[in-house]
Amino acid sequence: MANTYQYTRPVHYYETDKMGMVHHSNYIRWLEEARSFYFNDAGLAYTVTEKLGIMSPVTDISITYKHPVSYGESFTVRLKITKYTGTRFRVAYTVENENGVVLCEAETGHAFIGKDLRPVSMKRAAPERHELILRFMEKETQAD
Amino acid sequence: MANTYQYTRPVHYYETDKMGMVHHSNYIRWLEEARSFYFNDAGLAYTVTEKLGIMSPVTDISITYKHPVSYGESFTVRLKITKYTGTRFRVAYTVENENGVVLCEAETGHAFIGKDLRPVSMKRAAPERHELILRFMEKETQAD
Amino acid sequence: MANTYQYTRPVHYYETDKMGMVHHSNYIRWLEEARSFYFNDAGLAYTVTEKLGIMSPVTDISITYKHPVSYGESFTVRLKITKYTGTRFRVAYTVENENGVVLCEAETGHAFIGKDLRPVSMKRAAPERHELILRFMEKETQAD
Amino acid sequence: MANTYQYTRPVHYYETDKMGMVHHSNYIRWLEEARSFYFNDAGLAYTVTEKLGIMSPVTDISITYKHPVSYGESFTVRLKITKYTGTRFRVAYTVENENGVVLCEAETGHAFIGKDLRPVSMKRAAPERHELILRFMEKETQAD
Repeated sequence: MANTYQYTRPVHYYETDKMGMVHHSNYIRWLEEARSFYFNDAGLAYTVTEKLGIMSPVTDISITYKHPVSYGESFTVRLKITKYTGTRFRVAYTVENENGVVLCEAETGHAFIGKDLRPVSMKRAAPERHELILRFMEKETQAD
Repeated sequence: MANTYQYTRPVHYYETDKMGMVHHSNYIRWLEEARSFYFNDAGLAYTVTEKLGIMSPVTDISITYKHPVSYGESFTVRLKITKYTGTRFRVAYTVENENGVVLCEAETGHAFIGKDLRPVSMKRAAPERHELILRFMEKETQAD
Repeated sequence: MANTYQYTRPVHYYETDKMGMVHHSNYIRWLEEARSFYFNDAGLAYTVTEKLGIMSPVTDISITYKHPVSYGESFTVRLKITKYTGTRFRVAYTVENENGVVLCEAETGHAFIGKDLRPVSMKRAAPERHELILRFMEKETQAD
Repeated sequence: MANTYQYTRPVHYYETDKMGMVHHSNYIRWLEEARSFYFNDAGLAYTVTEKLGIMSPVTDISITYKHPVSYGESFTVRLKITKYTGTRFRVAYTVENENGVVLCEAETGHAFIGKDLRPVSMKRAAPERHELILRFMEKETQAD
């Protein structure tokens, strides 16, 4: 992926399992870590949305594991928002090791919901936020 | 899914996050728990395969989250092997709460690999095991 | 420990680490699982206290690891409330494997706090609950 | 603690629970993360010891939780080896938030063991490593 945000850190010991490699469930958590840093840097911090009473739960994940990684190694998540509809968005990811070997590829879907767990239109519920996301998407597309 | 194995347990407190519901990564772990019990009951325990030097890592996951669940509730995973090629297999899942509301639907892919992380043909590497899986698949299909 | 509550379940694969055994942090989670079942059975469910706006965070833990345990094995937590002061309580635990070998011994401290994170006197804030705990402690002591 | 190693990172969303704060079990994992970086920087990486067939499991933990922390905040672990006997060592920790408020204080014990899970004397099994640790301890003490 060109023009993507990067998040790198070492593997933690507790993320491995008895196969000697990182347990597959932990990659799902790495995607969340990367999203968190990505959104913070874009001025779109989760904490701000949550203060508005808006949450953005994961609605779906697809992930393909290509290569194992273990303690003693680092990984880099490259990610990018690929779609934003005003009530939903999608993010695509590639995770690599230090040698550029692809560890996994993934895509996640997200919805904006209120405290009643019902869908929220960002345009109506948080228009400034909505504008911020639109401008961010535009900038990313232009940079491609 | 008709003719499926069932695995039920309560949600643990530590599986929730600050949204007040179970964190999405934990469903991935529930699928593994359910597989473990399912394979044990089928006489296909992981522990036996691992003693043969054969591991079966997850190769891909697709999961769609439909409804949240939290501490104080229980969940049931219904699951079934849907495909077995001799070197790979696939499992399909539906997770429901106590009222039969679908929490998520998922599918996982798995490969058999050796200690060198290369694909293993069960037919050649563990023929008895291979036969066991074939007979299990047959029985499940007939019962449909 | 005589007269204690018991909680048993198999080890999950994702609870192991690359040493081949259960990661030490997961025992801490097992203690919580056991407390949850123990309190539920005693009519003292966490969910009820939380509805009253009262939380009971862990204030301290001491744990000694005696013997490893891995996937393919089960563990049993024996536990007991050892002290209740109206604002705090303590729980003692022994965790064993299927052969009665002690895996670890632990003690946890807990406080009752309100949504402002300040200490709560159960006697004043939830007198019925306070009485329930006192009666439960009495019954346990008599049974010793 | 004077003359201690520091490890800082933001809280991850998946580390919180429905109380809205970080789950107590995750602090135990933070201590391990901090140890890993500390030992790496001291030239005492776990990965090297493991290649010698020597593991160093946690033998005991005592931890006191002082103040909650949540997503949107960072924490700093300050830590130091306080004792080394040739077969065992101890580490002391203070975890603080960004404002220097102490979140928890902890101490962990560790043993060196072989693949047979029996105690290993570093002096005999890995004399160079033993010397490295001694020199590291000396340097730390002098700096106090």
